[in-house]
This record gives sequence, C-alpha cells and structure tokens, in this order.
Amino acid sequence: MNKKSLGAKTLVCPTPVWVIGTYDQAGKANAATAAWVGVCCSNPPAVAVSFTKARHSYGNILARKAFTVNLPSEEYIKEVDYCGIVSGKNEDKFSATGLTAVQSELVDAPYIKEFPLVIECRLLKHHEIGQHTQFIGEIVDVKVDENALGEKGYPELNKIRPILYTPGSGLYFACGSYLGEAYTIGRKKK
Amino acid sequence: MNKKSLGAKTLVCPTPVWVIGTYDQAGKANAATAAWVGVCCSNPPAVAVSFTKARHSYGNILARKAFTVNLPSEEYIKEVDYCGIVSGKNEDKFSATGLTAVQSELVDAPYIKEFPLVIECRLLKHHEIGQHTQFIGEIVDVKVDENALGEKGYPELNKIRPILYTPGSGLYFACGSYLGEAYTIGRKKK
Repeated sequence: MNKKSLGAKTLVCPTPVWVIGTYDQAGKANAATAAWVGVCCSNPPAVAVSFTKARHSYGNILARKAFTVNLPSEEYIKEVDYCGIVSGKNEDKFSATGLTAVQSELVDAPYIKEFPLVIECRLLKHHEIGQHTQFIGEIVDVKVDENALGEKGYPELNKIRPILYTPGSGLYFACGSYLGEAYTIGRKKK
Repeated sequence: MNKKSLGAKTLVCPTPVWVIGTYDQAGKANAATAAWVGVCCSNPPAVAVSFTKARHSYGNILARKAFTVNLPSEEYIKEVDYCGIVSGKNEDKFSATGLTAVQSELVDAPYIKEFPLVIECRLLKHHEIGQHTQFIGEIVDVKVDENALGEKGYPELNKIRPILYTPGSGLYFACGSYLGEAYTIGRKKK
C-alpha cells in the first residue's frame, strides 16, 4: 500500500476526549474540552494537558495550581462538544449544560459529577512548547462511578463509554469491542 | 451514582496505542509499544511520548534526536503487544514480528511499513517528570496509507482501526461507531 504524505500536521488519531475542570480567579467553575492530552508518568502518576494562552483554562490552572480531568460518557457528547465551542470567559458552562461542578476536597478545582471517571490533579509543572503550553498534573486521586468498575475494581471501558476524537476530520467516535489482553496476546510471537 | 476513590493511579482510559520507531547506536531498528503518549502542541505540531530510563527507546531517542509514531491497525494487535513485552536491547523485534522497518528520509528513525499511519518526528526537547522522561517530538510529516484516507483527504478512524488500551485492567479495545461532528453537535446547547 502506498503511503501519502500529508505534511507536518497533528493528524494522530484517535485522541481521547477529556474535559478539564478549573476555577477562575473569581471562583467560577469552568469545564474545557481538550484532546491534546495524555498520561505522561507512572510515578508520580501524572497527566499532561496542553492549552494555548488564549484559553480561559490557561490562566485558571496557573492561578489555582490545580485541575481535574473528567472522562465523559458518550451520552454527554453534546455537552462535551459545547464545552469545546464556547469560552468560560464569557459563559457559565455548568449552568448552560446542566452539568454539576463538585468542589474537590483534595485540590483547588471542581470535578464533574455526571461523568463516570474524574481525576484530581495538582499542577506539578508547566512549560511552553510553542502555541501550546503543556501543564503536567500530578494525579492525587481517581474517582469512578461504582457501576463503571469491573470485578477486579478497575474502570471498565464498556461501562465508562468514553468519547474519541479524530483530529483532521473532526469526528467523534465511540469505543468499540474487546480485542485482547495486554502483555498476553502477543506472547505467542515470542 | 456514588463515586469510589481509587487513589493516586494512572487510571485514565482509554489511551491510544502507539508504536515508537527508533534506531539504536548500532543502527538496529526498534519498535516500542507505548501508551503514555499524546498530542501536545498545534504549532509547531508536536507529540509527547514518555519512557523510563530502562527502556531501550530512551537512549535511542537521545542518541538520534528522532523517533517515529506508528499507529497500528487492530489486525496487528499481537505484534503490537509483543513489542511492549520484549526489549529491543535483547531482541530484533522486526525480524521476530515480520514487520518492516523503513528508514525515514526526513528524520533519523525508522517507520513501520505495515501500519496505516506513521508520523516522523525530530526531538524538540525532553524533560524528566519522575520515573518517566517525556520526549517531545516535532512532527515533520504524517504519512497515511491511501486506502485509509477519506474523501476530504484526512485519515479515517474506521479505515485505520487503531487500538485502544485501558490502564488498570490492561485490556485492548477497538474503536467503535461514529457519534457526531465536533464543533457542531454541541451547538444546540447554546
């Protein structure tokens, strides 16, 4: 199969869809949809989120030194998309969407009650890459809806039903069927 | 729904599965499966990949100042899992899996011919977070199999069929069905 060169673009796919919870300096809760995200360290457990300086979340995270990562179920796709369209500078996204901001007891940020998996982070460090600044949050706790946990006590993908985003085409997709067990299915190749 | 506290763990899910292509100092191609990854900047277009110092890729990236990000199709799940189990220090993963390393013409790293989407990166910077060091690669080019492109010329998720990983349970999943268009489906909430 021939490969076509598409140039220097962020055409990785899919990217998970996270909604980042912060407080602004006036104490108003904000929820910002983000796809430039990822786990970046196991110990300390840490996640990375990138924002441009223009985003309301940028100043919020710097001021409060904290944020939450909220994993929405696909049933909230309209609310999630909305939180990526409008800015918290101009609108109260929680009252507009009907989502509930819960003040974290561990970090100075709100999490989203309706989403099945929420991660509370304190800002570990941040650094400018270019248009985006990357904020690295140390995971302080992960909270998961009890009905989204499997038998072994871990979050189950088909119960959380997270949303995937495809940069370029700009389309959202659901997660799909079970394929196999990591560190197991490939053993036969040895 | 009550939320259960799971503690300070990297239980974000799903994470995309990428296979990182590098050359070691002897010139041997390596392919390392990674889940601690993500897009981190739009301009310059950049992706972040984290490795511990023990990983063969760690030294390879530092020595060659380059890596590739390869997005496998689910049909290669056994090869992908294998590339996360064994170390390139001890084995030639390309001969073991039958995958083909293609020398990039743009950066000092190999990409994987059989995978539908490959991204060539030069190392922009790296920094230690804790157990993991994060390598930030500037995207120099994205190459996609022609039959994985949609009408508008962007990679299509249901043609690439990437693999998802769930930290904690350690299970792989496929991508699923179409949910909606970003920056559109949420407009009604306004």
